[in-house]
Amino acid sequence: MRALAVDLGGSHATCAVVEDRTIVRSETLTTERSIGLAPVLGRLAETFHKLLGEAGTRASDCAGLAFCFCGIASHSKAKVLSTNAKYDDATSLDLDGWCRETFGIPLELENDARMALLGEWYAGAARGFEDIVMITLGTGIGGAAMVNGRLLRGKHSQAGLGGHFPVLFNGRPCTCGGMGCAEAEASGWSLPEICRSTRGFESSSLARETPIGFEELFRHADAGDSLAIEVRDRCLAVWAAATVALILAYDPEVVVFGGAVMKSASAILPFLQAHVDRYAWTPWGKVALRSAELGNQAALLGAVPLIQSQAD
Amino acid sequence: MRALAVDLGGSHATCAVVEDRTIVRSETLTTERSIGLAPVLGRLAETFHKLLGEAGTRASDCAGLAFCFCGIASHSKAKVLSTNAKYDDATSLDLDGWCRETFGIPLELENDARMALLGEWYAGAARGFEDIVMITLGTGIGGAAMVNGRLLRGKHSQAGLGGHFPVLFNGRPCTCGGMGCAEAEASGWSLPEICRSTRGFESSSLARETPIGFEELFRHADAGDSLAIEVRDRCLAVWAAATVALILAYDPEVVVFGGAVMKSASAILPFLQAHVDRYAWTPWGKVALRSAELGNQAALLGAVPLIQSQAD
Repeated sequence: MRALAVDLGGSHATCAVVEDRTIVRSETLTTERSIGLAPVLGRLAETFHKLLGEAGTRASDCAGLAFCFCGIASHSKAKVLSTNAKYDDATSLDLDGWCRETFGIPLELENDARMALLGEWYAGAARGFEDIVMITLGTGIGGAAMVNGRLLRGKHSQAGLGGHFPVLFNGRPCTCGGMGCAEAEASGWSLPEICRSTRGFESSSLARETPIGFEELFRHADAGDSLAIEVRDRCLAVWAAATVALILAYDPEVVVFGGAVMKSASAILPFLQAHVDRYAWTPWGKVALRSAELGNQAALLGAVPLIQSQAD
Repeated sequence: MRALAVDLGGSHATCAVVEDRTIVRSETLTTERSIGLAPVLGRLAETFHKLLGEAGTRASDCAGLAFCFCGIASHSKAKVLSTNAKYDDATSLDLDGWCRETFGIPLELENDARMALLGEWYAGAARGFEDIVMITLGTGIGGAAMVNGRLLRGKHSQAGLGGHFPVLFNGRPCTCGGMGCAEAEASGWSLPEICRSTRGFESSSLARETPIGFEELFRHADAGDSLAIEVRDRCLAVWAAATVALILAYDPEVVVFGGAVMKSASAILPFLQAHVDRYAWTPWGKVALRSAELGNQAALLGAVPLIQSQAD
């Protein structure tokens, strides 16, 4: 099956022509979540037309366009439902109408964590499993679940928001309106503030880094900076608790970790596996924890299974 | 449909003959989880035979026996999988075999939180909904979810263990092997230790209570005891966080709260509703929080829908 796919993140959009498990052509645009989605659509259309030409194919040869959005989106209604400060106009846009007018094909909308899960299930680390949790560690923390071979979406399309399960019931405020969410306690956007509010920050070597990301955090921790070690270990404990919660919620065989933070997988995955082995109540055996294999291609490679399952 | 039902808790077992949404006859036995389940089965059989006689019916007129167990149980295999220190021999018993030999009818096994959900869905507070979370607050904390009209069981029958989601990532050890579980932070079994380890316990009026349960906690808090107020408020915050996590996990329309602690529902439900309204990221609207309506009959009234859905 041939399909168009777009993966829209907070600061970029990747357009692709895909064929089953292969990305035939792709191109990444820089964009800006604060300007809204409407001004981006024209650029996406231009890019797709260019890629189609390069690939020697036509939109009408594609079964559909898979649109991966970084917020809560209804697959069945093809509507963005909530944006959490990313492309706030998206909730008012008729994306399917835009797609049919522009390309003459239907649009299938899904959020980024579910698309990544679909991609890893179809072509990556979760091949062969039917009970899967996906956790994306990045600027935010995304979660998605497949139970018995089917994506769990929920009544209002928001099942699986594992990054917002409270893991510290009296914790920090989150952009989602909650508090103590895993995302508020250990994600790309919250990390700088967590570091700055930790005692001893002024004398930490991390204080000289701008911006402070997880790559910097892990590097300074490895170099022995005590504040970096403290914050790193706390972030690991937060992710571990969120992982346990997601395992108890969905009873998976495998948990796949993606997102930019997993560039430091060797510092993360062994800790999480040991924690889960010890603390997650899974009398049936051990849940396998794996790094995503597809990197930032996961959502694009979720396009074909998303479109194939459109009758779900 | 007529059915037999047994609700086995840690300290009692209630046997019933049910007909659709009516409990025709029932009787509660005192039992003891530490002695194991095998010695209890003979007493259950006697009790069922007596109840059948009183109801003027026969086991062969019943579509099956619904067995509600206070641990992890596989519905599809009719096997207890994990007991968490309750009736530890149960994992080795052939309950379906026992039932067929004793009554000549099949047995359907499910855990207590899912049975309570089925009962409340069929005959109680969740009638008319298809997306439901059930939380039982008692000696432990149970969780169960129905998504799109179907119980969510998971690959190994343990989806929905909401009482063990960590809500305090560096918190207390739990009987499940985890730490910082809602159950470890605010349940019947953990409450006495939580009170005793809270600063100021010796001078609290609660120190004169034995045992310390939630009824005592709420009463002393209402009377102005500062330690009781502190612990009560902390328990409410723990339950609120667990509720938010379960909402984000399963995307329900309604959350039903059952269990013995809900005798103090008026002190609990308004707080939880306000917390969820404020902190749970549900852009579609407000999740309804309700008290269970069926009390300790919920699991028994789940018998008929459990048996009806046996093909699931």
